[in-house]
Amino acid sequence: MSTQDAAHPAPGSLMGAEIAAQPQVLAGQLDRQLRAIRVVAERVRDADPRFVLLAARGTSDHAALYAKYLLETELGLPCGLASMSTLTAYGTTPRLADTLWVAVSQSGGSPDLAESTRVAAANGALTLAVTNAPDSKVAAAAHLQVDIDAGPELSVAATKTYTAQLQALWLLIDAWRGGDGRQARQVPAAIQQVLDESVALVATRYRFADRVLTVGRGFSYPTAREGALKLMETSYVAAQAFSGADLLHGPVAMVDVHHPVIVCAPNGVGAELLRPVLNRLGEVGAEVCLLGPSSLADDFGITTRLGDPVVDEQLSPLVQVVPFQALAREMALARGFDPDHPRGLRKVTETR
Amino acid sequence: MSTQDAAHPAPGSLMGAEIAAQPQVLAGQLDRQLRAIRVVAERVRDADPRFVLLAARGTSDHAALYAKYLLETELGLPCGLASMSTLTAYGTTPRLADTLWVAVSQSGGSPDLAESTRVAAANGALTLAVTNAPDSKVAAAAHLQVDIDAGPELSVAATKTYTAQLQALWLLIDAWRGGDGRQARQVPAAIQQVLDESVALVATRYRFADRVLTVGRGFSYPTAREGALKLMETSYVAAQAFSGADLLHGPVAMVDVHHPVIVCAPNGVGAELLRPVLNRLGEVGAEVCLLGPSSLADDFGITTRLGDPVVDEQLSPLVQVVPFQALAREMALARGFDPDHPRGLRKVTETR
Repeated sequence: MSTQDAAHPAPGSLMGAEIAAQPQVLAGQLDRQLRAIRVVAERVRDADPRFVLLAARGTSDHAALYAKYLLETELGLPCGLASMSTLTAYGTTPRLADTLWVAVSQSGGSPDLAESTRVAAANGALTLAVTNAPDSKVAAAAHLQVDIDAGPELSVAATKTYTAQLQALWLLIDAWRGGDGRQARQVPAAIQQVLDESVALVATRYRFADRVLTVGRGFSYPTAREGALKLMETSYVAAQAFSGADLLHGPVAMVDVHHPVIVCAPNGVGAELLRPVLNRLGEVGAEVCLLGPSSLADDFGITTRLGDPVVDEQLSPLVQVVPFQALAREMALARGFDPDHPRGLRKVTETR
Repeated sequence: MSTQDAAHPAPGSLMGAEIAAQPQVLAGQLDRQLRAIRVVAERVRDADPRFVLLAARGTSDHAALYAKYLLETELGLPCGLASMSTLTAYGTTPRLADTLWVAVSQSGGSPDLAESTRVAAANGALTLAVTNAPDSKVAAAAHLQVDIDAGPELSVAATKTYTAQLQALWLLIDAWRGGDGRQARQVPAAIQQVLDESVALVATRYRFADRVLTVGRGFSYPTAREGALKLMETSYVAAQAFSGADLLHGPVAMVDVHHPVIVCAPNGVGAELLRPVLNRLGEVGAEVCLLGPSSLADDFGITTRLGDPVVDEQLSPLVQVVPFQALAREMALARGFDPDHPRGLRKVTETR
């Protein structure tokens, strides 16, 4: 029994509980929200948008990036991540007919997101808010909304709301393309399998690393981004995320033997695209930690591993982020920080 | 006289010459290419695209991001940065009618860029290549092309081709909106003014910094990104770039007194948006180096400066990147590296 009382939970206990709750959170969302999400998808399909703009910040921006890959590969729709300041600060009058605007936010509380959503709607876009707060300003500003229904998130570092955003976006896009959401049923068990594997060895190994690179490609790129953000927020490590292709266009010069590189490879196409990157990292002698298929680990002699969650490539971001969350939490604790309360952060960040 | 001969120039001499050549390069482009760029702009305006996708990697990706801000603020067009892998690797059939596809590349040699440009054209997009290589694969793959006409770039780290890309994109978009390109005439003198100021004090101060944050907002965000890439490529420092808004959504937790933060603020709206960010950086005691208006430096008591180039906010990225280029070169030399030949990089990076 911990000496901590309920009012002062042990460091990392909030984040730990929320990481562990993800199988139940996603299963619950599927049970309770699928019908509502399908209604929203029907409205969107009827509107037949030709372009999609996604607006978000922080962790939610990585969920938006995931949606961008899905929309492009599944529906062939050109997508962009919105630069909110062009709508809120530079006073643009955008031409947004035939455009779907998707605002993604855990709290739904950021003024610039609410304001840019209003501007988008006033200029012809169909607007949709994906939040964990159906009564929020952002949800109120949009024509349509999806409730990710993840329950209150008490840790400042977002975990369960991220995977709940990813699943809600997947369900929406799957319904839009005519699917029945069935594939999502494999996800909770896959996450549970990851949760049952310890990340303690890797956390110990990287206890004194002050720089970490994370690398993904295709569907694993949002995971590399979110993994880096979790490490920055909780362990204060200089974590830099790159797509494998962009890494080779310059930043690979700073890779050396002194700083670990965590490569996140989904099954399928993404894994193949990462082979030239793993080749280059091998040439410079970088220590690579692999989150991904054993076949890649074998081919490149990689022994530091963060799990091999087996799930369809398209759904793999919902599962592959979980070892990153656990690693960030354990590294923070090993360094004497409380990952539930990162220094200088509040749960709702207000930017304009 | 250096002991180096012509076949083995002194370290950093190529990059130094190319940084110094930028006023002449930009003036020459304006003289020689404005007419051709206006013809391309007319073709684009006649096609009246409703959406713009920009495809690029590395330094060129930052030029694409600049064009995104310009297109959004000046023409109100929704824009996206293309995820090339969705077109080349995941086998998508994109719906790109009414879409302008802009491929930006110095060498025009990357196979994924040429291939994705072909796929875009085959699926309804009007395609435009902006390169320094009119005979390249990427230029050949596009319907239209703009030659940035910067002359051969010998240093691996791109400098003059970056500002030449920015100016060519500005001229194109200015002509598209009906301008005559006149404002660009202020740029060469503004760059010369920056070149006349030494960055040696800052380079000395950051000689032993192994982590640097760069921060921008709005039009200065591409500069923060490109500045960070230059530092990574040449000095192997872990440079991380953030928009001021995104920094506050999480990464600010890792900011402390041990690592410098370079804030890049244009005149105008961008500077105002950075005030809350400078407030937060002050609260955590971060050392801030300001590239931007003296008024901001005075208000926040910032004494470490990288210049205050005075130029319209929209054109400021062409000028503000120059102190970053010079800083990256000097820091590399101070660390004993040759910025002309970063380890492990070739001039043309081929990614698929």
